[in-house]
Amino acid sequence: MDSTELRDLLEEYRTGRVTVDAVLQRFGDPPVADLGFAHVDLHRRQRCGFPEVIFCEGKSGEWIEGVVRKLAEAGQDCLATRVNAEQAEHLARQFPLGEQDRLGRTFWLPAGTREPPSGRVIVITAGTSDLPVAQEAVVTARALGCHVDLLADVGVAGIHRLLRHRDQFSQADAIVVVAGMDGALPSVVGGLVDCPVVAVPTSIGYGAAFGGLAPLLTMLNSCSAGVVVVNIDSGFKGGYVAALIARGARKQPSS
Amino acid sequence: MDSTELRDLLEEYRTGRVTVDAVLQRFGDPPVADLGFAHVDLHRRQRCGFPEVIFCEGKSGEWIEGVVRKLAEAGQDCLATRVNAEQAEHLARQFPLGEQDRLGRTFWLPAGTREPPSGRVIVITAGTSDLPVAQEAVVTARALGCHVDLLADVGVAGIHRLLRHRDQFSQADAIVVVAGMDGALPSVVGGLVDCPVVAVPTSIGYGAAFGGLAPLLTMLNSCSAGVVVVNIDSGFKGGYVAALIARGARKQPSS
Amino acid sequence: MDSTELRDLLEEYRTGRVTVDAVLQRFGDPPVADLGFAHVDLHRRQRCGFPEVIFCEGKSGEWIEGVVRKLAEAGQDCLATRVNAEQAEHLARQFPLGEQDRLGRTFWLPAGTREPPSGRVIVITAGTSDLPVAQEAVVTARALGCHVDLLADVGVAGIHRLLRHRDQFSQADAIVVVAGMDGALPSVVGGLVDCPVVAVPTSIGYGAAFGGLAPLLTMLNSCSAGVVVVNIDSGFKGGYVAALIARGARKQPSS
Amino acid sequence: MDSTELRDLLEEYRTGRVTVDAVLQRFGDPPVADLGFAHVDLHRRQRCGFPEVIFCEGKSGEWIEGVVRKLAEAGQDCLATRVNAEQAEHLARQFPLGEQDRLGRTFWLPAGTREPPSGRVIVITAGTSDLPVAQEAVVTARALGCHVDLLADVGVAGIHRLLRHRDQFSQADAIVVVAGMDGALPSVVGGLVDCPVVAVPTSIGYGAAFGGLAPLLTMLNSCSAGVVVVNIDSGFKGGYVAALIARGARKQPSS
Amino acid sequence: MDSTELRDLLEEYRTGRVTVDAVLQRFGDPPVADLGFAHVDLHRRQRCGFPEVIFCEGKSGEWIEGVVRKLAEAGQDCLATRVNAEQAEHLARQFPLGEQDRLGRTFWLPAGTREPPSGRVIVITAGTSDLPVAQEAVVTARALGCHVDLLADVGVAGIHRLLRHRDQFSQADAIVVVAGMDGALPSVVGGLVDCPVVAVPTSIGYGAAFGGLAPLLTMLNSCSAGVVVVNIDSGFKGGYVAALIARGARKQPSS
Amino acid sequence: MDSTELRDLLEEYRTGRVTVDAVLQRFGDPPVADLGFAHVDLHRRQRCGFPEVIFCEGKSGEWIEGVVRKLAEAGQDCLATRVNAEQAEHLARQFPLGEQDRLGRTFWLPAGTREPPSGRVIVITAGTSDLPVAQEAVVTARALGCHVDLLADVGVAGIHRLLRHRDQFSQADAIVVVAGMDGALPSVVGGLVDCPVVAVPTSIGYGAAFGGLAPLLTMLNSCSAGVVVVNIDSGFKGGYVAALIARGARKQPSS
Amino acid sequence: MDSTELRDLLEEYRTGRVTVDAVLQRFGDPPVADLGFAHVDLHRRQRCGFPEVIFCEGKSGEWIEGVVRKLAEAGQDCLATRVNAEQAEHLARQFPLGEQDRLGRTFWLPAGTREPPSGRVIVITAGTSDLPVAQEAVVTARALGCHVDLLADVGVAGIHRLLRHRDQFSQADAIVVVAGMDGALPSVVGGLVDCPVVAVPTSIGYGAAFGGLAPLLTMLNSCSAGVVVVNIDSGFKGGYVAALIARGARKQPSS
Amino acid sequence: MDSTELRDLLEEYRTGRVTVDAVLQRFGDPPVADLGFAHVDLHRRQRCGFPEVIFCEGKSGEWIEGVVRKLAEAGQDCLATRVNAEQAEHLARQFPLGEQDRLGRTFWLPAGTREPPSGRVIVITAGTSDLPVAQEAVVTARALGCHVDLLADVGVAGIHRLLRHRDQFSQADAIVVVAGMDGALPSVVGGLVDCPVVAVPTSIGYGAAFGGLAPLLTMLNSCSAGVVVVNIDSGFKGGYVAALIARGARKQPSS
Repeated sequence: MDSTELRDLLEEYRTGRVTVDAVLQRFGDPPVADLGFAHVDLHRRQRCGFPEVIFCEGKSGEWIEGVVRKLAEAGQDCLATRVNAEQAEHLARQFPLGEQDRLGRTFWLPAGTREPPSGRVIVITAGTSDLPVAQEAVVTARALGCHVDLLADVGVAGIHRLLRHRDQFSQADAIVVVAGMDGALPSVVGGLVDCPVVAVPTSIGYGAAFGGLAPLLTMLNSCSAGVVVVNIDSGFKGGYVAALIARGARKQPSS
Repeated sequence: MDSTELRDLLEEYRTGRVTVDAVLQRFGDPPVADLGFAHVDLHRRQRCGFPEVIFCEGKSGEWIEGVVRKLAEAGQDCLATRVNAEQAEHLARQFPLGEQDRLGRTFWLPAGTREPPSGRVIVITAGTSDLPVAQEAVVTARALGCHVDLLADVGVAGIHRLLRHRDQFSQADAIVVVAGMDGALPSVVGGLVDCPVVAVPTSIGYGAAFGGLAPLLTMLNSCSAGVVVVNIDSGFKGGYVAALIARGARKQPSS
Repeated sequence: MDSTELRDLLEEYRTGRVTVDAVLQRFGDPPVADLGFAHVDLHRRQRCGFPEVIFCEGKSGEWIEGVVRKLAEAGQDCLATRVNAEQAEHLARQFPLGEQDRLGRTFWLPAGTREPPSGRVIVITAGTSDLPVAQEAVVTARALGCHVDLLADVGVAGIHRLLRHRDQFSQADAIVVVAGMDGALPSVVGGLVDCPVVAVPTSIGYGAAFGGLAPLLTMLNSCSAGVVVVNIDSGFKGGYVAALIARGARKQPSS
Repeated sequence: MDSTELRDLLEEYRTGRVTVDAVLQRFGDPPVADLGFAHVDLHRRQRCGFPEVIFCEGKSGEWIEGVVRKLAEAGQDCLATRVNAEQAEHLARQFPLGEQDRLGRTFWLPAGTREPPSGRVIVITAGTSDLPVAQEAVVTARALGCHVDLLADVGVAGIHRLLRHRDQFSQADAIVVVAGMDGALPSVVGGLVDCPVVAVPTSIGYGAAFGGLAPLLTMLNSCSAGVVVVNIDSGFKGGYVAALIARGARKQPSS
Repeated sequence: MDSTELRDLLEEYRTGRVTVDAVLQRFGDPPVADLGFAHVDLHRRQRCGFPEVIFCEGKSGEWIEGVVRKLAEAGQDCLATRVNAEQAEHLARQFPLGEQDRLGRTFWLPAGTREPPSGRVIVITAGTSDLPVAQEAVVTARALGCHVDLLADVGVAGIHRLLRHRDQFSQADAIVVVAGMDGALPSVVGGLVDCPVVAVPTSIGYGAAFGGLAPLLTMLNSCSAGVVVVNIDSGFKGGYVAALIARGARKQPSS
Repeated sequence: MDSTELRDLLEEYRTGRVTVDAVLQRFGDPPVADLGFAHVDLHRRQRCGFPEVIFCEGKSGEWIEGVVRKLAEAGQDCLATRVNAEQAEHLARQFPLGEQDRLGRTFWLPAGTREPPSGRVIVITAGTSDLPVAQEAVVTARALGCHVDLLADVGVAGIHRLLRHRDQFSQADAIVVVAGMDGALPSVVGGLVDCPVVAVPTSIGYGAAFGGLAPLLTMLNSCSAGVVVVNIDSGFKGGYVAALIARGARKQPSS
Repeated sequence: MDSTELRDLLEEYRTGRVTVDAVLQRFGDPPVADLGFAHVDLHRRQRCGFPEVIFCEGKSGEWIEGVVRKLAEAGQDCLATRVNAEQAEHLARQFPLGEQDRLGRTFWLPAGTREPPSGRVIVITAGTSDLPVAQEAVVTARALGCHVDLLADVGVAGIHRLLRHRDQFSQADAIVVVAGMDGALPSVVGGLVDCPVVAVPTSIGYGAAFGGLAPLLTMLNSCSAGVVVVNIDSGFKGGYVAALIARGARKQPSS
Repeated sequence: MDSTELRDLLEEYRTGRVTVDAVLQRFGDPPVADLGFAHVDLHRRQRCGFPEVIFCEGKSGEWIEGVVRKLAEAGQDCLATRVNAEQAEHLARQFPLGEQDRLGRTFWLPAGTREPPSGRVIVITAGTSDLPVAQEAVVTARALGCHVDLLADVGVAGIHRLLRHRDQFSQADAIVVVAGMDGALPSVVGGLVDCPVVAVPTSIGYGAAFGGLAPLLTMLNSCSAGVVVVNIDSGFKGGYVAALIARGARKQPSS
């Protein structure tokens, strides 16, 4: 809002055409819930299109419960990731309606009825061991409202396993590729499609994978131009960004 | 194509309903131009939506010229990046119509007339020293057919410089954020918008930036869920993926 | 003490104007308690303004107890950090008056009455998972005699959560910012205040945080000039230095 | 400003007790000069106590000149660092009154008369090769208004060289220690004083110093609690933060 | 040779059935030429199947010349690698019959006539920029006596470029794959053939390739079991080992 | 298959000289078994000379069992590696005929009778602690049909332990050298033989071995030209590639 | 032994002046005990002055027992390091006369009576947490026959703790300095003495110590010329080399 | 000096038995020459047995000249290392009697006549390219007064080159081994001798040597117990410590 707009608004207020509350809404801070141990960002859904998501590592069950409760009270969807067994049990007791996915280690408590899915995301894994990370991506992209399919264990050591599904994944609006070890799969997928490929390195592999560093570097250096990268083992971010892209591709263009 | 479809196609061919050329088109290899020193992928435009782009580092002027010529003969747009002074001079002599951008070190030789831009990309830099990388992103996203704006030097040490442009960049379909040093800007931008943010780390900074490693790690660890990362100093990939996303957001949805 | 002063002192001694003990005090070693497994530096309070602090990792409960006892006997405050559950239990049995903070993992046994707090430190965390490290900073800065406030979970993904507290933290004499993941918060805070910001990286985050390396590098490369950095997860050092700064700012200037 | 204050201000405006300009000043953006290639943060002096400082790497002489001119027009001090020979020559032609320090590679153009120095900073180097970085710290801390002394080449291999100056540096409000190779000096200095020690690692040394990584890690792991660290070779930050601390220690305490 | 064999040999010598020279040959040291600055291993051809190869980095032209001369005098083939322009000129003057390859930076001076090639090696590159390293492999494998073909620029971003040559490279006895950037090509090739694949990472690429570290790690983590790795940019070793394997595959098996 | 061959095949089909199944075999996808959590590559044996091998880390016993069953049904040998105790127990219950090696952590279920071994592999270890990795290599190379010998604990600190076995290992077609700590053994072995040496670094050693990084780098930098490297602790790959080489050396040469 | 000496020896043998056994002793291999899982180097005492030492990590109790037994049978001293609790118990049962040190995790079984200590070693630690590593050094240097003293917890944060013992450690023939965190102590000690200082980095410290990498680099970059470095946490090597040096300094010089 | 000794000394002074100068010598600071840019440690020869050595990197010719002059005036030997061409020329003009070694890049200006060499050092290199670093070691050890021999290019790829010189180097009091690439030579040498081996890694090699990191780690992890390590390319330290050890071994033992 530039200076002229501000002057106009104030003039409208001074002359009674707009209320003080309307002015305050323009200048006031966005809503935040201060719980002492957390400032829940109740405005994020409006800014970013999805509510704040709870990363559970290093938090007590009570802390997580507090944030879930605050989001639910505000009528917002609630997604939590990296939920360990103890936290899962605590949440199950407090929120029996929440959906828990043990493979992906997620907790999901949607608010009210949901719109039909929009945008098509495909999650592909190089190996079977990559499945937990991939499942986190699947749950996340579904939470953001996309249609999601999973294609498991089609790594480049047997490239025909991938190529036979080419018709399927080339229809996607966005593709998440989850791979450990050499992390070569996103480059191959990226060379076959015209949508962005979100590469998720995993920490699966022998010693020189260095906890996911190897596939991370592979993906960052992908010779396919449409490949972007997120953090190691972050199925969450992979699914989140793919959903953002896919939803964007399906909304009515504004121009 | 599965086994049943194959049988049907062959039966149609045997009975004369489809020609041998039609069958061959289904099975034949995609077009490639073998120049000895390069296999130009003339099929990439069809698969990936944009022709092969020439990365010029470590190549002789003659090699680059050969690929440009082959792409041009095939009626395809030709973009080259990381063009050094000697290569630029060579290309200028051979292709006087090519557009060269010395800040972004690019060469651009479009084929035929171009459609009006579609999709809106904003390229933001944290500092002035990041401009060459940002300019590579600008040229690339424009080559892919997007409308692109540049917003320079709005790093987080003076956060109001960024916030005052919020109305502008929150309208984008995709945002490229180019930053060296602490690489903190993409996290802040990502928390303000509902479109994907493609973060490009640069090698600008003091010693502990380790040639771009520091902002690379910052960006991979971004606490904003919509941030994805490409290679250090790769303005090209930043612009490319942002354009893929923005174009997707503006095409008529298929369902 | 230069050569002339030495000569004067010796002359005074020779002529009986100063005692041999006075001379010895000038040349003698500062006090040390040798326990075999430790040389307790009983002189540190005089040199550095605060007694030696006990880092408990890798030490037996008996070793820690021995140092605590020696400091207490010397009438000095005793702070211990990184106290694990077993050590805490041992200390509780031996020193029931000691204050234990289980979140920050500290043990605190002050000597005698304390002066009112002087200097104002604010400890800010990016996320809720950073709280244990932040709490170590809080306890430490209070032990050094400062007034300390804690502001939790105001990371840059929702920058308004921070900005709304701007009036509060811009009054501080020193600010400790504790952050994992991208470690971007200190740069933003540093751009808003005129006091030093002590950044403490934490080991919280996904794989590419590499145990705190990512936020450490972010903070070292901060584009805000007033940001300094301490070791990963070292809430102790963050609180210690912030308190040194804040105490300095409140003492009567000597010139 | 909280909601109640906002309502009061608006009521005062509505009833004519404050002008529209006064309201706008509260809500309006801080001043910024947009030069296309840079957004000069003209508000930083007010927020952070010192104007924006120009980091010259990767910038053309014209870009630097533009920012200098804008700061000077705004009546603000102008400090530029990492000025290479070509840039220095350009600036010398444009601003003959600017002070250039070739050892420290700085450019300094103060605005108007200066107050007498306040606060005492000591800059110590481990070796002679560390002098350029140390000089950058000296120039910066003087620009911020402190009294600065330099103590060169007193590394720990001959510890008596340091100890003999102990009376001098123990009077400082803040100490900058610049060291390459093993980076051990800050730990020793930190154990002798009661003020903060800002450690600046340099890239001086044999192969396993890895461009300053070795002293950087040494300093981060300092066993002296009062040691904080800035970026490799960043004499600028070392001097800046030390000056912030020293100025704070000399201003009249507010409570 | 075990103790019994030794006794028998000595007994044969004592009784005059073998000469003292025969005994000495069993016990004597293998031949070495000591040039002061080098100990030329004239026995390596016998042990390892190929003479010592000269790595030229960091050596004067005279030093290299000395070793070449000593090998030639001993009637052995002479291969030198990493020959820079100055060294090449020196060698050309001294050994006009030597063959120099400027792309691969090699010098090759064979001794006497050569046997017809045996064993089939294919050298594949991911990109055109990888050609200098690949050419070093080609020259080396040919020097070891293999038939060598080169297949350039068939990286995984356009996988059909590789697949169309599948009949050709699946006939090889050993394959060298040279790739920078993501280094993904060896995994794909390894999944298509039943001979070993020797992967050579190159230092070509954007910043996060870290001088070849990225493709090196990719290749070490290859999900294809038949992939082994050599040093970054070491076309020499790639060609050498591939030739060892290919020669082995073509020699008459002993059982 | 090029275009002419394709036309000929189709003409033969059209005129009834080849059946539709013959054509389909040329064009159809290779066999794959899709289990949902895995795409078993049943075609790998034909392409690469050995069936897919199961890497068990991060997989449930049921997942592994499913793949074993599918391979067995297809009449293929089944090798699984990195089998932990729980998985081993599960497999033992399901496949009592499978051979388990607890030192090498392998599971081996061959299909039908086996041919006599062909090709000679020697596995050498530097120390006793390297035995588990070496045993994985032994089992793997035997599964691929080679004759394998093991030579343990002959590291370079007592070089005579190695030299006394020189006659034995110089007869090998391929040698696997397994070493942690300094990883120096492969260079010494490589200088004594004329066959390839496959070096396997292990994670055994003191702190600066960094989990196998030290011997990995040593081996990559081996001054012996015939040394290639595989992943840290990957006895599997060491044995696999050595067997590929040894089998190749013993098969009847085709030319 | 050069060629002339060999001829002479053989001539002497042929003419009966030396026996066949004498000749064999010259040519025969040094003694080795092959246990299958280990080749015990029974010759090392003769070559290196001390028998082979057993590194116990990753070995079964039976394996260790086998080597101990073999060394004892050969009348050699037996030292084992990194003995865990289970191994210690096993060894205690088998060799009740062995001396076990639980702090240093060593096992020591001397053969026969021992000579009086020769050479003086001092082991110094920076902190109390470094004691286990230091104790391994103490036990080792004593096993090699030196007089050893331990000086604990005299790190540089309180430099007077070290300086007061200066008379003591400046008499040493070799000094071992054990330090984690900043690893600064060896540089200070090295600047005070004229004997070599063997620096042993430990893995003690906060996050940015990176498991001992920080003090390792510090020590390698020591500005004191007499400092050498061994592996992280390798008290064994520290004690071993210091004892070699100290023993050398006390033996009767040969010239 | 403990408290009782101090009292005695003072009493002797008071009663006139010792002069004030004698007391001052006990308490006074060691001699230092403050040149502004350097504090020359004129006391180091007394403490450490050899004067301060000048490391020339990053210093002006004038600075170096100043220190040389000060040392010469104090009648001390002067050794300078890492002397580049420009500095060498400057020193040659100022000190025509100084000895310059261009291969080792050293400057050497001894003070007065020298004693005959004592102690025997052998410097061994793995390759010819390691000679410059080795030569720095040779010059340094000679400056410290040892007898030094050089044995070049006997790396482990041809182990017989080393073994044939075994009689020679097993007589040494200390051995310096200089090696790049795999850095394996020190382990082999260390297994053959009973004196300490000082390993010096060099930055020679292919990409994965990472500027000397590979041989550095190899050497730190040496399986030979008598191997210690100094900084990359630091021939100076290698020669310095070896000379300390060798001199110690030849001086008359005190007990």
